Amino acid sequence: MIPESNFLLHGADYNYEQWLKRKDILEEDLLLMKKSHMNVMTLNVFGWSLLEKEDGVYDFSFLDERIESLHREGIKVILATPSGARPAWLAEKYPEVLRTNSRREKELFGIRHNHCPSSPLYRRKVREMDERLSQRYGSHPAVVMWHISNELGGECHCPLCQENFRSWLKDKYGNLDNLNEAWNTAFWSHTYTSWSQIQSPSPIGEYLVHGQNLDWRRFLSDQYISFMKEEIDAVRKYSPSVPVTTNLMYFFEGIDYVKLAKELDVVSWDNYPRWNAERDSFSVALDTAFFHDRIRSLKGEPFILMESSPSSTNWQNTACLKTPGMHEASALQAVAHGSDSVQYFQWRQSRGCSEMFHGAVLSHNGRSDTRVFSEVSKLGEDLEKLECVKGAETRNKVAIIYDTENAWAIEEIQGYKMNKKNYHETLVSSYAPFYRRGIGVDIVDQSADISSYSLVVAPMLYMVKAGFTDKVKAFIDDGGVFVTTYMSGIVDENDLAFLNGAPGPLEDILGLRVEETDSLPDGRTNRVEMDGRSYINRDISDIVISEGAEVLATYSSSFYKGIPALLKNGNAYYIAFRSDGSLEDDLFSRLSSELSLPSAPFKGEKGVVGVMRGKYMFVFNFSDKDSRFTPDYPMKDLLSGRSVEGEVELEVNGVMVLEME
Amino acid sequence: MIPESNFLLHGADYNYEQWLKRKDILEEDLLLMKKSHMNVMTLNVFGWSLLEKEDGVYDFSFLDERIESLHREGIKVILATPSGARPAWLAEKYPEVLRTNSRREKELFGIRHNHCPSSPLYRRKVREMDERLSQRYGSHPAVVMWHISNELGGECHCPLCQENFRSWLKDKYGNLDNLNEAWNTAFWSHTYTSWSQIQSPSPIGEYLVHGQNLDWRRFLSDQYISFMKEEIDAVRKYSPSVPVTTNLMYFFEGIDYVKLAKELDVVSWDNYPRWNAERDSFSVALDTAFFHDRIRSLKGEPFILMESSPSSTNWQNTACLKTPGMHEASALQAVAHGSDSVQYFQWRQSRGCSEMFHGAVLSHNGRSDTRVFSEVSKLGEDLEKLECVKGAETRNKVAIIYDTENAWAIEEIQGYKMNKKNYHETLVSSYAPFYRRGIGVDIVDQSADISSYSLVVAPMLYMVKAGFTDKVKAFIDDGGVFVTTYMSGIVDENDLAFLNGAPGPLEDILGLRVEETDSLPDGRTNRVEMDGRSYINRDISDIVISEGAEVLATYSSSFYKGIPALLKNGNAYYIAFRSDGSLEDDLFSRLSSELSLPSAPFKGEKGVVGVMRGKYMFVFNFSDKDSRFTPDYPMKDLLSGRSVEGEVELEVNGVMVLEME
Amino acid sequence: MIPESNFLLHGADYNYEQWLKRKDILEEDLLLMKKSHMNVMTLNVFGWSLLEKEDGVYDFSFLDERIESLHREGIKVILATPSGARPAWLAEKYPEVLRTNSRREKELFGIRHNHCPSSPLYRRKVREMDERLSQRYGSHPAVVMWHISNELGGECHCPLCQENFRSWLKDKYGNLDNLNEAWNTAFWSHTYTSWSQIQSPSPIGEYLVHGQNLDWRRFLSDQYISFMKEEIDAVRKYSPSVPVTTNLMYFFEGIDYVKLAKELDVVSWDNYPRWNAERDSFSVALDTAFFHDRIRSLKGEPFILMESSPSSTNWQNTACLKTPGMHEASALQAVAHGSDSVQYFQWRQSRGCSEMFHGAVLSHNGRSDTRVFSEVSKLGEDLEKLECVKGAETRNKVAIIYDTENAWAIEEIQGYKMNKKNYHETLVSSYAPFYRRGIGVDIVDQSADISSYSLVVAPMLYMVKAGFTDKVKAFIDDGGVFVTTYMSGIVDENDLAFLNGAPGPLEDILGLRVEETDSLPDGRTNRVEMDGRSYINRDISDIVISEGAEVLATYSSSFYKGIPALLKNGNAYYIAFRSDGSLEDDLFSRLSSELSLPSAPFKGEKGVVGVMRGKYMFVFNFSDKDSRFTPDYPMKDLLSGRSVEGEVELEVNGVMVLEME
Repeated sequence: MIPESNFLLHGADYNYEQWLKRKDILEEDLLLMKKSHMNVMTLNVFGWSLLEKEDGVYDFSFLDERIESLHREGIKVILATPSGARPAWLAEKYPEVLRTNSRREKELFGIRHNHCPSSPLYRRKVREMDERLSQRYGSHPAVVMWHISNELGGECHCPLCQENFRSWLKDKYGNLDNLNEAWNTAFWSHTYTSWSQIQSPSPIGEYLVHGQNLDWRRFLSDQYISFMKEEIDAVRKYSPSVPVTTNLMYFFEGIDYVKLAKELDVVSWDNYPRWNAERDSFSVALDTAFFHDRIRSLKGEPFILMESSPSSTNWQNTACLKTPGMHEASALQAVAHGSDSVQYFQWRQSRGCSEMFHGAVLSHNGRSDTRVFSEVSKLGEDLEKLECVKGAETRNKVAIIYDTENAWAIEEIQGYKMNKKNYHETLVSSYAPFYRRGIGVDIVDQSADISSYSLVVAPMLYMVKAGFTDKVKAFIDDGGVFVTTYMSGIVDENDLAFLNGAPGPLEDILGLRVEETDSLPDGRTNRVEMDGRSYINRDISDIVISEGAEVLATYSSSFYKGIPALLKNGNAYYIAFRSDGSLEDDLFSRLSSELSLPSAPFKGEKGVVGVMRGKYMFVFNFSDKDSRFTPDYPMKDLLSGRSVEGEVELEVNGVMVLEME
Repeated sequence: MIPESNFLLHGADYNYEQWLKRKDILEEDLLLMKKSHMNVMTLNVFGWSLLEKEDGVYDFSFLDERIESLHREGIKVILATPSGARPAWLAEKYPEVLRTNSRREKELFGIRHNHCPSSPLYRRKVREMDERLSQRYGSHPAVVMWHISNELGGECHCPLCQENFRSWLKDKYGNLDNLNEAWNTAFWSHTYTSWSQIQSPSPIGEYLVHGQNLDWRRFLSDQYISFMKEEIDAVRKYSPSVPVTTNLMYFFEGIDYVKLAKELDVVSWDNYPRWNAERDSFSVALDTAFFHDRIRSLKGEPFILMESSPSSTNWQNTACLKTPGMHEASALQAVAHGSDSVQYFQWRQSRGCSEMFHGAVLSHNGRSDTRVFSEVSKLGEDLEKLECVKGAETRNKVAIIYDTENAWAIEEIQGYKMNKKNYHETLVSSYAPFYRRGIGVDIVDQSADISSYSLVVAPMLYMVKAGFTDKVKAFIDDGGVFVTTYMSGIVDENDLAFLNGAPGPLEDILGLRVEETDSLPDGRTNRVEMDGRSYINRDISDIVISEGAEVLATYSSSFYKGIPALLKNGNAYYIAFRSDGSLEDDLFSRLSSELSLPSAPFKGEKGVVGVMRGKYMFVFNFSDKDSRFTPDYPMKDLLSGRSVEGEVELEVNGVMVLEME
Repeated sequence: MIPESNFLLHGADYNYEQWLKRKDILEEDLLLMKKSHMNVMTLNVFGWSLLEKEDGVYDFSFLDERIESLHREGIKVILATPSGARPAWLAEKYPEVLRTNSRREKELFGIRHNHCPSSPLYRRKVREMDERLSQRYGSHPAVVMWHISNELGGECHCPLCQENFRSWLKDKYGNLDNLNEAWNTAFWSHTYTSWSQIQSPSPIGEYLVHGQNLDWRRFLSDQYISFMKEEIDAVRKYSPSVPVTTNLMYFFEGIDYVKLAKELDVVSWDNYPRWNAERDSFSVALDTAFFHDRIRSLKGEPFILMESSPSSTNWQNTACLKTPGMHEASALQAVAHGSDSVQYFQWRQSRGCSEMFHGAVLSHNGRSDTRVFSEVSKLGEDLEKLECVKGAETRNKVAIIYDTENAWAIEEIQGYKMNKKNYHETLVSSYAPFYRRGIGVDIVDQSADISSYSLVVAPMLYMVKAGFTDKVKAFIDDGGVFVTTYMSGIVDENDLAFLNGAPGPLEDILGLRVEETDSLPDGRTNRVEMDGRSYINRDISDIVISEGAEVLATYSSSFYKGIPALLKNGNAYYIAFRSDGSLEDDLFSRLSSELSLPSAPFKGEKGVVGVMRGKYMFVFNFSDKDSRFTPDYPMKDLLSGRSVEGEVELEVNGVMVLEME
């Protein structure tokens, strides 16, 4: 649920705390926010030191003043709880709040995101702060959203966390016998005979028991969710109707975001694509589109783009500038995929410390006669024209399974091709054929309801969780098409191999079994033939025995020449090898036709991409050169207000928002 | 001494502990072992947790059952002591048994091979376990060998180890004056004035005193040998006649294997070549042959191949499958070089944890209708045909000096070309000319009796130990030919430079001295000329002054153009530079002719290799394509039973075992 | 102030302590020193263990004997204080003297240069030793210089150092409010509310507060200077007139050498160029020349080459030999740039430990009939011919600003192109055009008096310190030409960004502002056009707005095509982009002509370099082949005694020392 406003949010993190001695700058901020068509500011992400200078002594006067000032200008506030960075006095007075790392070194005060998530003391101090914020600002008309902490994640191995881990395990397993079996501790004689023997994984202790590692990651994830829930409860205490979010991160797997999202009213995330850097824009757009879709799919609702850079991103190895127009294209890409906002980190560049060169709306010189300020303002105007897009929903017929626990299990793998596991790359490579064709895709995990889709693709579904197989069976029975690949159906939720071998519980559905899997050294490739076309095979090649499945393609090299490489068993497909993506492109193209999947109504040159949201089609030119496209019928461009008909020129980085009849 | 059976062993590590809840699987194991022509199983490597679930409470019932079951099927047992992996309760109750690493961090319970070798408590617990095993199974008819611990190695820096190190040093040096001189502690003002000042090397303390580092490695090696001896004494207590082994590792230098082997009845090792991966098969065969010969030479007797993978090896970066036939070629290569067994890790793939994807006779699905099972069974049948080979001895006229202490000293070197010391590569490069020509080679260290050889090659003999020079003199006087290279005769056993400069004590034998040594950056090369042929020179170039030696080759580039690069002083040769191996190939070819060294009686295409064991010649096709060879006279192939005469086709990965008249 | 002798020093570190049991060797040393034309030896660098075998028990007899023996032979002594390496007993008895590293691990005894610089105990022990040395040897006629400690540097994070750091901060900031503002601690809510919260930077604590990191480095630098000053006071106690030095290191930035040099009578350094290794000799000569000039400029007086290798340098990855003649060229390069000495580490190779293969005058065999000994002796003779050069001063019209605090700040940068910051490379690249043309350059920092120069070049002057801008204004007003580049004028001394944006306080001088800075990924380049010539642009490209500056060059590619890339505002130039050095070459060539900068009077082929010192011109052939040059008029070569006129052949590595009329 997005704040009840009828406009798209446009705003930034506003770390006014750094400018308290410069009233002139604080004044000027308000003028320039208006000038750049901002309507929201995120406050207080790093505000704790200012609000509570010593234990229990609170002073909200500065924050009061800023919120009032913004409110006077009609600018809304997203109010953050400041738990992401605790004050120095807190760490000094209560060392318990500091983390212990996996080597069991007690960390010192510093950086951010480094509190022990178990610490009862820290939880209490956070709750006390949050309740005060809730009470003071929770019904303020400017405050439109709560922003819980900041980019949650990390790990702590202190004694408190060890105890919590053991409790979590007791709750899960009941007794040690169950745990020993789930973790296969008979391996290497690791059988645990008392709970106290169990510790979190460590490079100077145990790190090769997969079930233990998995449970540790589950525990960590649960612990952050529980920490967040405590904060949510606190802010809701006096502010039950203001929606709550927290900001997620690109391919971050420290927390199971599907579980976390359930606790939030709105999902938001921080998006820092590497535009105009090492790779062509289409490739960057593709990765980013995948993750926007992943974020939207968490709740199946519009989301919030909480952070992005209006310019370069300092922590990237090469801080490249965005070329002209890329800012708008990047921002509207988020909107196209379901965002109801475009927000920046940050409003004004910090004077010092590690993020001082992060792109911001205002750079150190505070000038508004710059290219960046002008592109931001132009975008602000355009967002105003797109008011009608706010809240528009996205409904897709294709789902790709991206499962965090599966990602964890794949990380544990000791085998196959360890230097090229490439789970994320494979997901994106499966997504690309749809993205190229303007076909919308949801990104969900195994817990999702898949019954409404026509096509479900589950690449590298190494871990198959309880219940998923039945769901797939029902889906297929219902006419759905299911595609999976090599390295699927290997282990259960405990990372224990299925004892019928791969593809484990999917064997019947797929009508085949995998006898062996070859891994190819870097530089060695096989070929696969299908319908007279030849595909390259890298990294991984299954040697499959069909148990009824139809063979669509076979290897044409190596000692497994002639062996099936792509199989179809009714509505279930198995891709037995890793290609460069061209096999997926051909297969998904064919399936898209067969299933009449809805696609964006236009034809474009390479690199011109269409994304549908509700009744709007966003068309982007990510081809790095001026290009052309033709809408299937005349449509109105919301940005220019003009009707678009026949072949249209779209300049490099160009974007149009077309209303489909 | 190999177990008194008249057959070659064929078997596997059998970690039945992981399947206790699956009686069906345990039953099926027996059937499939017979089906695959297995005659031995290694048990109890990781059995401690099962046998002693709490301190002093033993339960041997499961092990009893398995041994009896195997015995009923006529399958022998190699019984391991389980000291390689201690139970969690032991680590919890007696933290003393855990290691302290070189940074002085106390390690936690986890993984394996991580007990403190000094801990009196651990030694006692191990002895108590071993004596029980000895008493219970030491005269069981199925038990044919003791397998002490597992892949011994590692280091501990705990206070107990520090004390033991100091005692070891006191025993060695008597007083600090001797120690200070041996370690050259006057360097950097390090003179020790009390024993308590001495600690083991550490990255946060002393690590640049070479003599100290060397002694620490000697101490560690001695400590593991002493640990192993205690275990040997324990198992022999009630089982004096069952032979004892432990499993060694490829180019592992944590222990001086020559010293360790003296304590064993039989040497065994774990062999995991990277077949069909990055390099061509001949190169892999060459490395592996070298190490088989190294292992056989430890006792100069047949050995045991204790572990190998019947399929891919999971911990290698790319887990490539073996191409058809490679399994048999790889297995019989071991036999050709002196193994009386072919054994696998492991019988059945583990369900979970880090080795779950290690190749095994049975994969997770437990099927016997697989390529791997079929190749294993075929090999089992063939091993039965090779019964006569068992116990056959190998007698060679060539020895290469591979000395563990020398390897340690070379690791210490701060100088020359630090990124390309390449001791192992140089050893193998010296071995290659003989291997290509079917000439058998022993791999021995400086302590060996070399009087029976015709040719002794000592590449990079950086450290020359007391007594070795005299031995070489006597050997040459007796007509033997001695070859050494650049970077030889530099330091004594304390890593102190000889004060006559290189080649130190070998100066008289070689008739030359080294004035300077140039190191060549990557990419820069010199040329050397000999008899009109030109050789490339990489990495290292000595500038040599002949003191009587005959000059066989000279540099033809650089400022030392015209300076000797290969010298001969009577029967002693000095190779002054590192080539790409072609110099060694030409020189050893010439010496082989001059010395009429016995070679395998056949002529083959490139990559076809002959290895003699007793009266049998094993011929392998490691050329990666079908190839031909011609035996010097008609012979019988033990595998096919057919006589082989004239040019014979040997398919890729093919092997024949020919009986030489 | 260099010792009052009328000759150039020629000598070596003499670690006689390692040879006490070899009287024969100690005797032979004296003969061979004379034979190789040595006139000075550095003693006692690692002598503590010998002089004080136990706490408070001193024995100077060995040192007495050596100094007397050398004196008898007419060899002078540079006497080191032995604080660089403390005895084992001292570390054992007083653990306080050992360091704690940044992870807060207490280090163990070992290696060298690892004492806590705060430890009052260590300072007392050092002072007691130094005063004894001063008293005993301070007026000995052989002793010509004090050598304080050895290659000072490193860091300690022990409680004593934490306390000292806090005191240092209190002295600097007075109160926490000032500190918090200087460090911008409002960022990430880091505001310190008590001094005790502040700790040194740590990888397990705070490491991203730039101001804190900078102050820690300033503190460390000050602490070593204070440590050194205590030693200087101690040796001067009884020896007020013997000059004092310490040996500095190549591009070492652990200490601000400009500050340190103020405390010394003479500056000395250790020079280990990688001759004849990966790069061509001209490139190595260029780097080395830069650093010789840097060292000379520290006091603007002749300096001492304290260490160099007469052969290869063992700790370099590839220990290449010097080609014939390179030793003399390298040694006289030091003299050309202002050294009054050529000294080696070390006289005789150590028998053991990490430096045993470091090049030395005598190698392990102690022979004097070697190429190295002969080249050293030849150089000794030549140095005697160059007596007149001693004390000759260098006066230059060009200065390059190399500022240690600026280097620290650049290291902190999180932004731009992090993998290619290349401050040192950029300095050398700015120096190269002058070096190629025989134009002398001083290397100074922002604290220097620049009024006597014609041209001041300040590459990457990221941090502009208080006072520097005014100095530059006055310099320009006075007719001086000032050149700076991209990444200049960004931060003040606290690493806080200037709030007018780049180039900060230099905006008026340069007549421009930087709106954005683009960073180019590896492999991507832009082009810049000037006067019809095209330049390549890598890594960094400023987008500049001229505020009055004249545009000399513009970008010809990217979206900032047509934007200024080189600007001139009166006598101030701004280079907006990083080229491959060719832009600097063209610009500085033009400026050299316009300013009539004095250059070495000769014309030479590429790689032939002229360096002026006083009335002497040193000409070097660093072209790696025989080459030619022509002096502008007939001159006398001091080495050959011949007059040189017209075109002259200079063999590879050749050097001439010509007296300019």
